[in-house]
Order: sequence, then structure tokens, then C-alpha cells
Amino acid sequence: MTVVINANRLQRVIGEMKKRKLDQLIISDPLSIRYLTQIYVEPFERLWALLLSADGTACLFANTLFVLPENDLDTVWYSDSDDAVGKIAERIIPGRLGIDKLWPARFLLPLQERLKDTVTVLGSDCVDDCRAIKDQDEIIRMKEASRINDIVMETARNHVREGMSEREVARFISSEYLKYGCQGVSFAPIVSFGANGADPHHEPDDTRLQKGDAVLFDIGCLKDDYCSDMTRTYFFGRVTEKQQMIHDLVRKANETAEGIIKPGVRLCDIDTAARNVISEAGYGKYFTHRLGHFIGQKEHEQGDVSSTNTAEVKPGMIFSIEPGIYLPGEFGVRIEDLVLVTEDGCEVLNQVDKHCRVIEIV
Amino acid sequence: MTVVINANRLQRVIGEMKKRKLDQLIISDPLSIRYLTQIYVEPFERLWALLLSADGTACLFANTLFVLPENDLDTVWYSDSDDAVGKIAERIIPGRLGIDKLWPARFLLPLQERLKDTVTVLGSDCVDDCRAIKDQDEIIRMKEASRINDIVMETARNHVREGMSEREVARFISSEYLKYGCQGVSFAPIVSFGANGADPHHEPDDTRLQKGDAVLFDIGCLKDDYCSDMTRTYFFGRVTEKQQMIHDLVRKANETAEGIIKPGVRLCDIDTAARNVISEAGYGKYFTHRLGHFIGQKEHEQGDVSSTNTAEVKPGMIFSIEPGIYLPGEFGVRIEDLVLVTEDGCEVLNQVDKHCRVIEIV
Repeated sequence: MTVVINANRLQRVIGEMKKRKLDQLIISDPLSIRYLTQIYVEPFERLWALLLSADGTACLFANTLFVLPENDLDTVWYSDSDDAVGKIAERIIPGRLGIDKLWPARFLLPLQERLKDTVTVLGSDCVDDCRAIKDQDEIIRMKEASRINDIVMETARNHVREGMSEREVARFISSEYLKYGCQGVSFAPIVSFGANGADPHHEPDDTRLQKGDAVLFDIGCLKDDYCSDMTRTYFFGRVTEKQQMIHDLVRKANETAEGIIKPGVRLCDIDTAARNVISEAGYGKYFTHRLGHFIGQKEHEQGDVSSTNTAEVKPGMIFSIEPGIYLPGEFGVRIEDLVLVTEDGCEVLNQVDKHCRVIEIV
Repeated sequence: MTVVINANRLQRVIGEMKKRKLDQLIISDPLSIRYLTQIYVEPFERLWALLLSADGTACLFANTLFVLPENDLDTVWYSDSDDAVGKIAERIIPGRLGIDKLWPARFLLPLQERLKDTVTVLGSDCVDDCRAIKDQDEIIRMKEASRINDIVMETARNHVREGMSEREVARFISSEYLKYGCQGVSFAPIVSFGANGADPHHEPDDTRLQKGDAVLFDIGCLKDDYCSDMTRTYFFGRVTEKQQMIHDLVRKANETAEGIIKPGVRLCDIDTAARNVISEAGYGKYFTHRLGHFIGQKEHEQGDVSSTNTAEVKPGMIFSIEPGIYLPGEFGVRIEDLVLVTEDGCEVLNQVDKHCRVIEIV
């Protein structure tokens, strides 16, 4: 089957180029190239780029060592002994040229050297702003990735037993995803027992599960090139009043934030809504990170739900809502869903119960 | 203990800057920064840079989220809400500014925007050319990494049994290194049985070892931040005349190349020496890659032993010599050592016997 460029996405990106008065745009992020062309290459240190012009033409630059699927794209091939940057330079017209934020100096400086009549400016927002708003195909894939994540979360909760190590449980989770046709995890699973949960980025180690531990799972899979990401916190064998109170507070912060999401609301105001719930209860200083991040082909994409992001929410955006309270030496609770912004609100992509639950010792 | 800049390495880099008429140099490769300062940070998308001036002054630019060891370096701190590039710009003097080849456009373009009297040129060769020539401390570490690699190669050879899978053996090798205090592997171990060895970059899979298979191990560890890398090819249970002949030929290519290495010889001529041995026997088209690569803090560093690299060998260089013959559908043989260039020749860092050896079935 011949691969063709995604015309709708191309038109959206071209629209962004026009807004920013760019004549051409060099896209080098392999995921942005795949987003537009369906072609994925891991180029390592070699040059791999898609040159878009505001008139809608597109041209790929590829090393002869790359294996591309059959496609109808205009492609300029170069070999290791060719001047690859020179081949791009031949296609650049005088004017304003957008550059991918990731493009390294090893390509950018020699290109600038050749193009005295071209102004180079950062241009990857043209693609990143489109990638932040998912289309129907992407929404279907992300819902499926989150559906599987829901199943694996329940499986993980049912799987844990006294004495198991975090590392064992993390490995189990990684292997479970494969049963559902996933390509793998979208990030290394976080499994934290007891006080380890007070470090939001704890890496699973040989700590063994004991009665009374908080059990935090922050997990996600990669399915059909799109990511899921969810966190739940359980309690093993019993729960104290304090644990229950903290859990209820984090859930309230999560639900409060999710409750106000709709087009036009600013991302910073969503962060504030969750943070206020926690701060008013006196735990503000234990909620140490931003409320959420955008997600798609990567688990962290450009854009976040934080106090400094004044951008407004738009339909089709998918991001995480993940308040947490981290009590050093005691335990941590985080509750995270992915949400899809709809025309008049949001759809929460995760269905796993968020109430405080005790895992029975069997 | 307070960390200080490595004065010898700094002086060598400054010397390279002067040769290239650079007034200042921005170094952003975290391994190059560690090479000079002993400080390692994984900055992810944040800015982390060392600015060197030709007068020998050095200044670090670090995010307040980074945790640095106690040090006596001039450090400019910035937070996520600061204009980090602006802080670098304040320290740039008019003139020629070298830029790290890896520095992304997201930093380079805004810096150029601010510095109208500064010419930006690629400058990381100033460090990479120094990193290619190891000093005494690095030589000690790389010898130790190769000494451990020798031990683990012998252990791997003794470990394999009929029916084991490549994946199992690769996992075994990875775990063996940990017994010797390694940080881990320097690259994912290549374990290839039978026809899989005809792909030089085969990834270990579920193929199981059978009598008569060629068994190729291409393995290395990371010890005290430096890498080892070695390949040996054995035969399981028996060896055919053809296998033995190919193995002898590859060994002869390896030993011929190692035999001519001394200061002043061109890297391309070393490649040719090995290639001629194989070509004269009629197998030239089955030796499909360059003869070797430089190595140090990473398993592949700048510089290679290839037909196009006309640079001359200098004392202190460490690189691999790894001829191979790959017969599709049959088997592959590669024999690789690391070599250290000395004042009048070279020292081979690997001691594992290179003769054709059959692994006995027990």
C-alpha cells in the first residue's frame, strides 16, 4: 500500500505557517514527520527532514541507508559521502524559514552559512500546536491505549501479594501490555510501596510489599503509536484515617479540575483549581509538581497544565490531570487520568474507580 | 570533596580553540562537560552548557533544578521562568563563537538573534579531538573495562549450552558485568547463533543454540564511566572446514591491521590493510562495514577507522579493529579488539584468544 501525506494535518500545519509568516519549514522531529507522512525513521546522527512550503508542497530528505515504505512523496536521497545540507539548501527559497526546535547545530550552522538571503526562525510550534489537538484517528488510538491501561491497572491491583518487590510487579505490568497487542510501555512503570511513593519519580527497586503500605501505580502503554498514562494509589491490607483523608483530598483535587475543563478555560486555571483544593486543606507544599502534561505519540508532548501556561483549552486536546500529595518518610498519593476536551466539557479516558480502596490480603 | 576543572584537558581544548581562531566555545554535550569538569547532568530539554573563553575562563549555565556536586566553577543559575539563553548572551563577547554540534535550534536561534556582532561556527571538534586522545586516567579506566570484558567473554563461552536462547545468554552476560562493579553494559549485548550472525547488528531473539552453530558475542561494559567493546566468534560442538577457513581469514585481517598501527599511519590505511586480506581471498563484498570506531565515554565516539578518514593515528587514541565476513543464510564471523596507540605501535586491550575454537558440548 502506498503511503500518502495526511492532507488534513498538512493543511492545518500550513495554516500555522501562514499565521507566522513562514515561507518554508524544516521539520526534523521523527514523530512530527510521521504525524504528517506516516513514515517513521530513526535517523541517529544522520539527516532526516521534511521541508514544507507555504504553497503546500513537501519534500523529504533521506539517507540512502534508510528504508522507506512505498510512498508518493517527493524525496531527495543523499549518501554518506554527499553534502546533505547542500541538498536542502538547493530547495530553500529566499524568505523566512522555520526550523525545528530539535535540529542540531551540526546541520543548522552549515545551512545558514549557505543561505544569506534567508531568515531562520524557530518554527516547530507550527506542528506542535497541531499535534496538541488530536484528530479522530488519534482519538480512537488514544482511547484504545487508555482502555487497555484500565484493564492492566485492575490486573496489577489483583496481582500484588505480600512480599513481592516493586521491580517484580513493574516487570509483570510491562509484560501484561503485550497480551493486548501493545508495542510496549509508554514509559517505565512506576510502582512505589510505602514511603517510596513520596518520591513522585521513584524507580521500582527491591522494596517488598508489606501490610499497611500505600501502593502507587503510574503506568501506561504504547498502542498503535499512541500513549496512555494513568496513576492510582491503593492501600495494602488496611488503610489509616490519615491515608484515607489524603486520598480523598487528592481525588477531590482531581475531580474538581476535571469538572471545570471545557473550551476557553485557561490551562493555568485548571492547575489552580486542583491546587486550591489541596492548599486549602493545608497540604499545598506537598503538591510539588505541575498538574498535568500533554500526551500523544510521546508520553510527554509540548504543552502542560501549569501555573504559567495561559493558553486556552481547545476541543481535541488530550492531557493528564494528576494532582498528588507527597509526605516524605510516610507515603504519597497521586490520582491521574487522561482527559479529552470536547465541545462543551471533557471526556475522562480512564474508567478505573478513583475511590480509596484497600487491596485485601489473600 | 570539591570538584575542580581538569586543567590539562582544559588547556588542550583551549589550544584547539586557538588553532581554530575561536574566542569562545559553548559546550553542551553532557559527556564533554563531564570530561572537563567531572560534573554530569542529564538535562533533558533544559539548557546545560559550559562556556569556555580562549583566555581560559570557564562558566557553567545550570537550571536551579539540577543537583551539582560541590565545585569551584563560576556558575550562572537560571530557573524555568528565566530567560536562560539571555543569561548566556550576557557573557558572550563580540568575535567568533564555537557551538556544540549537538546544540538544538531552540537555543541556538534565540542566541543568534541577540548577538549581532558574533559569528557562530561549529566548534565541538575542539573537544572531540581531545576526547579522541585518551590521557592516563582514561587509559587506566578503559584498560580495566576491557579486563572485565575479557573475563565475561570467557564466562559467556563456558556458559552456553545446547537449547539456550540468544536472549537468555544476552541477559546472562548483562548480569555478569554487575559482579565486577560495572555500571552496566556499554551497549545491548549482541549474541548471534548460526545464520543470525550474518547480520552484523542482529538483536538477540528466541533462536536456540544447536550443534554446528557459529556463536558470535559482541559485548562490552561501562566501568567508571568508560566503555569496553569486543567480539569473538566460536563454533558449537563442531566446526566445518569453511567455518575454520573464514575464521582464520578474519583473524588474519584483524592481526594484519593491528600489526601496522603506529603514530603517523593514516586511519584509512589501517582499514585498507584489513580489507585487502579479505578481498584477496575473494570475500571483500562480505565485509560490509568500516573497520572500526573510536570509543571512550560512549561506545561510539567521534572518529572512525574507515576508507574515508585520512587523519593520522596519534599516541593515546583508542579505537576498535573489527573486521568481519557475513555470509547470508550461513553464518558470520567478526573478531574485534580495542587497541591503544602507543609511541611506537599499539597495545591490544583484549587478551581473549583469537584462534578458531570449538565449544565442547557437555
